[in-house]
Amino acid sequence: MMQVPLTVGSLLERAETFFPKKEVVSRTLSGIHRFTYKEIGRRTRRLASALDTLGVKRGDRVGTLAWNHHRHLEIYFAAPGMGAVLHTINLRLSPEHISYIINHAEDQVLFVDEDILPLVEKVKDSLTTVKAYIIMTDQDKLPATTLEPVYSYERLLEAGDPEQSFLQDINENDPAGMCYTSATTGNPKGVVYSHRGIVLHSYALGLADTTALSEKDICMPVVPMFHVNAWGMPFAATWFGSKQVLPGPMFTPKLLAQLIENEKVTVTAGVPTIWLGLLNELEQNHYDTSSLRSILCGGSAAPMAMIKAFEQKYNIPFLHAYGMTETTPLATISTLKSYQEDIDEEEKLNIRSKQGLLVPGLQMKVIAGDNEVKWDGKEMGELLIKGPWIADEYYKDERTSESFKDGWLYTGDVATVDEEGNVKLVDRTKDLIKSGGEWISSVDLENALMAHEAVFEATVVGVPHPQWQERPIACIVLKDAFKGKVEKQEILDFIAPQFAKWWMPDEILFLDEIPKTSVGKFLKRELRSRLKDYFFEI
Amino acid sequence: MMQVPLTVGSLLERAETFFPKKEVVSRTLSGIHRFTYKEIGRRTRRLASALDTLGVKRGDRVGTLAWNHHRHLEIYFAAPGMGAVLHTINLRLSPEHISYIINHAEDQVLFVDEDILPLVEKVKDSLTTVKAYIIMTDQDKLPATTLEPVYSYERLLEAGDPEQSFLQDINENDPAGMCYTSATTGNPKGVVYSHRGIVLHSYALGLADTTALSEKDICMPVVPMFHVNAWGMPFAATWFGSKQVLPGPMFTPKLLAQLIENEKVTVTAGVPTIWLGLLNELEQNHYDTSSLRSILCGGSAAPMAMIKAFEQKYNIPFLHAYGMTETTPLATISTLKSYQEDIDEEEKLNIRSKQGLLVPGLQMKVIAGDNEVKWDGKEMGELLIKGPWIADEYYKDERTSESFKDGWLYTGDVATVDEEGNVKLVDRTKDLIKSGGEWISSVDLENALMAHEAVFEATVVGVPHPQWQERPIACIVLKDAFKGKVEKQEILDFIAPQFAKWWMPDEILFLDEIPKTSVGKFLKRELRSRLKDYFFEI
Repeated sequence: MMQVPLTVGSLLERAETFFPKKEVVSRTLSGIHRFTYKEIGRRTRRLASALDTLGVKRGDRVGTLAWNHHRHLEIYFAAPGMGAVLHTINLRLSPEHISYIINHAEDQVLFVDEDILPLVEKVKDSLTTVKAYIIMTDQDKLPATTLEPVYSYERLLEAGDPEQSFLQDINENDPAGMCYTSATTGNPKGVVYSHRGIVLHSYALGLADTTALSEKDICMPVVPMFHVNAWGMPFAATWFGSKQVLPGPMFTPKLLAQLIENEKVTVTAGVPTIWLGLLNELEQNHYDTSSLRSILCGGSAAPMAMIKAFEQKYNIPFLHAYGMTETTPLATISTLKSYQEDIDEEEKLNIRSKQGLLVPGLQMKVIAGDNEVKWDGKEMGELLIKGPWIADEYYKDERTSESFKDGWLYTGDVATVDEEGNVKLVDRTKDLIKSGGEWISSVDLENALMAHEAVFEATVVGVPHPQWQERPIACIVLKDAFKGKVEKQEILDFIAPQFAKWWMPDEILFLDEIPKTSVGKFLKRELRSRLKDYFFEI
Repeated sequence: MMQVPLTVGSLLERAETFFPKKEVVSRTLSGIHRFTYKEIGRRTRRLASALDTLGVKRGDRVGTLAWNHHRHLEIYFAAPGMGAVLHTINLRLSPEHISYIINHAEDQVLFVDEDILPLVEKVKDSLTTVKAYIIMTDQDKLPATTLEPVYSYERLLEAGDPEQSFLQDINENDPAGMCYTSATTGNPKGVVYSHRGIVLHSYALGLADTTALSEKDICMPVVPMFHVNAWGMPFAATWFGSKQVLPGPMFTPKLLAQLIENEKVTVTAGVPTIWLGLLNELEQNHYDTSSLRSILCGGSAAPMAMIKAFEQKYNIPFLHAYGMTETTPLATISTLKSYQEDIDEEEKLNIRSKQGLLVPGLQMKVIAGDNEVKWDGKEMGELLIKGPWIADEYYKDERTSESFKDGWLYTGDVATVDEEGNVKLVDRTKDLIKSGGEWISSVDLENALMAHEAVFEATVVGVPHPQWQERPIACIVLKDAFKGKVEKQEILDFIAPQFAKWWMPDEILFLDEIPKTSVGKFLKRELRSRLKDYFFEI
């Protein structure tokens, strides 16, 4: 067989060649813009040639601090296309962490959205490798800034060559992208994506049995493009010639609902908190969401009550998936097998609320101690994954040895596997609640709590306890309409039938807000820290 | 990213792990058999261990002369799984060619279906490398044979280890399979498939935009497993956990129709002559074919009239694809783009009767002389293909240099490309009719002829002509009901509106049968040879 490498540049080339008329809809600070793949292709080639001119060399890291929009999409292909490495930076991290990862990755140039400028100006004096800043503004004129040297994205493109070829002799194992993931303690950890990994992962996204991404789709990644490449959707959607809708900065649930209605979005992707927000919006205002064939949800477990609401109330199919920064990210996806079509609706929902089946191309095992757990849906253990789009290290980081052992990624996620092979995440190893020598799954309790009509968000943490080591405390945000109108006991009574007595939370705290990570996950560490003396102060 | 090789063994492992209850339905000389993937997995491992015992080493070729059934499927995974090379032999070739390719491939062992025994006995004395014959019979007792040493497939399995591991340290570029393709002149040419090529091709088959093969499918490859791995369907169907229906030896259109009805087949695959036969059967007897979501058709161009009949009369979607032994084989597949959904039905049919769009992962160009042709649906040129599942040579064969140049496969197919990028095969370079310095497409004429209600099969060949170099002659087989009732002129009048006058065939010959190749394609070489003096004898 021919030794033809799998390269990121070839994904865009296919869109330019076969789908030049298809559209990328992009929202920026100045409104909605529309570009065809033909235009995106020429602009990307201009950008690749401009990177050349800026002195970016093969293997150099190109940093981005940007929202989901067409310019970010162009860098997605221009950097790997010319042999450099796309380094998307999570702009919700602390300035200290942002500064750390830019220096650690040794970014040579930095692409920055206009509204992120103040953040970058704050850290600029600590940056040791950045040789140029490019401001991704709609204006030709640059805004006033203390950054230097500074370039206008559009001016840079004007000077670039729209016919620039992508680098041909790429080794498919060369780095194409990188992304840092938050660590429980210490600095973020870097994950490097190869050309091969990204292309194989794109195949995985196009399979009929996974997300079935297709030319017929209108694909809106809400998950940020600075977070695990927006789950790889911009790569795959471009390859398959799907229309893309990129929702830009500071979107609201209302804006998302409008984009779904106006652009006839068929597939969208994001974390549960995004969908909780959308659900809330759909409950308040009417939108035509009939074009949606799939809401792809991952990042943390989707509460069954939310899946049910989307499917039964709004007739929007919900697709539950699992992955992490280290897995590019798609690892498992929830789906019914053909012989499960006749089981009752509740049981179907139960299966589909799990994280589901391993995607073709990967291997997994779930271990407790030295042994693999039984696939009975009950035995818990840590999930291990292996495969060609799974990282094998943290970039120049001693913590590699904690997570990568004997050729496997130790995910840090505790899971069960049922008889059909469906993975169900029970908790993070560090979030499991250890009570009196037994384990309590915070995720199971959260799902049960979220099913209560008054509950907007719920999280459960293990809090140190003098007698039991840890005991669960639930933190709950009520929906506006229910604030001040619901008692703790009502909620405890509501979930009690589902759990053994010793699983029940010792306390329910009503909060205005649950602290979240930069990518919208509940920040349990913060809650644990606030509550650490709770049982000692009583 | 982890350096995890793409291996054929891992495809079966996924079926064993996640789809152990799903079925393989296999028809052999003794009737219909049913096996689960769990059973197929254990039998395959027994077989791999038996191959070990027979002395088959890494890289050795394992020959098969067999129809589509479960034992053949087991060898598909056992041979590559233990590091050997699956060599499927086209049992419809001449004894001389069969002997040539077994010796040329240096097959170490030969798996033979019971009804193929006489053929093998005929050539056995010329075989120089075969060390063992395994008869794939349902009986434990071996039939009488002059082959030696000879083994019973089932006895061999009994002695094998059902827990045998597949070889772990496979390089994904190692050979996993091989298949010989007929040459216009001389001996067949060998194509070697790598593990990597087969796995990437399997991804391609699972994409929503191609055949969308899925766990929900019931997949019946009618294309023989000795022909380009039955288009890769057994590999992909196993990987995705589809139920498989393998129709066995000497099937008839009636049998295929019954299997479709009884097993609720959703996807089936084969060459146009198979589907002409099935269409004929459907016209004579009633079957429930409502389960079929796709008839995949390739090997040679499907006549538009046939596509129309299946779709409009029987409501069976028809999927036209293109590939060859050298391309594993899927290269292009016909599909409408999302913005073509509103065009009229005739124009849709016109698009869908083309060979369609290049599959994600491949590159193509169409050249006339040194230049690429314009994508206008008119300019003709030779189709060139490149990609990770495209062969880069013929196995130990000097003819490699004729077809593989500058990193491209020269397909020998003449094609046009329309504005949307759809490939349309116009002819084989050698079948194009050269008349008075212009080119006439035999395929276009054939499609027009096949649309006549009386025509069962039609082929057009260029015949040497004293004045025009070549002129087209049409050879036609009428449907039984029309035999003796149709005049030449009626058929010529029927197609005349579609063609320039000088494209029209000079003659129509009514034949009882059109000679075909071993894989069911029209054997134009044979017709040209019969007719070579036609215009000189008049």
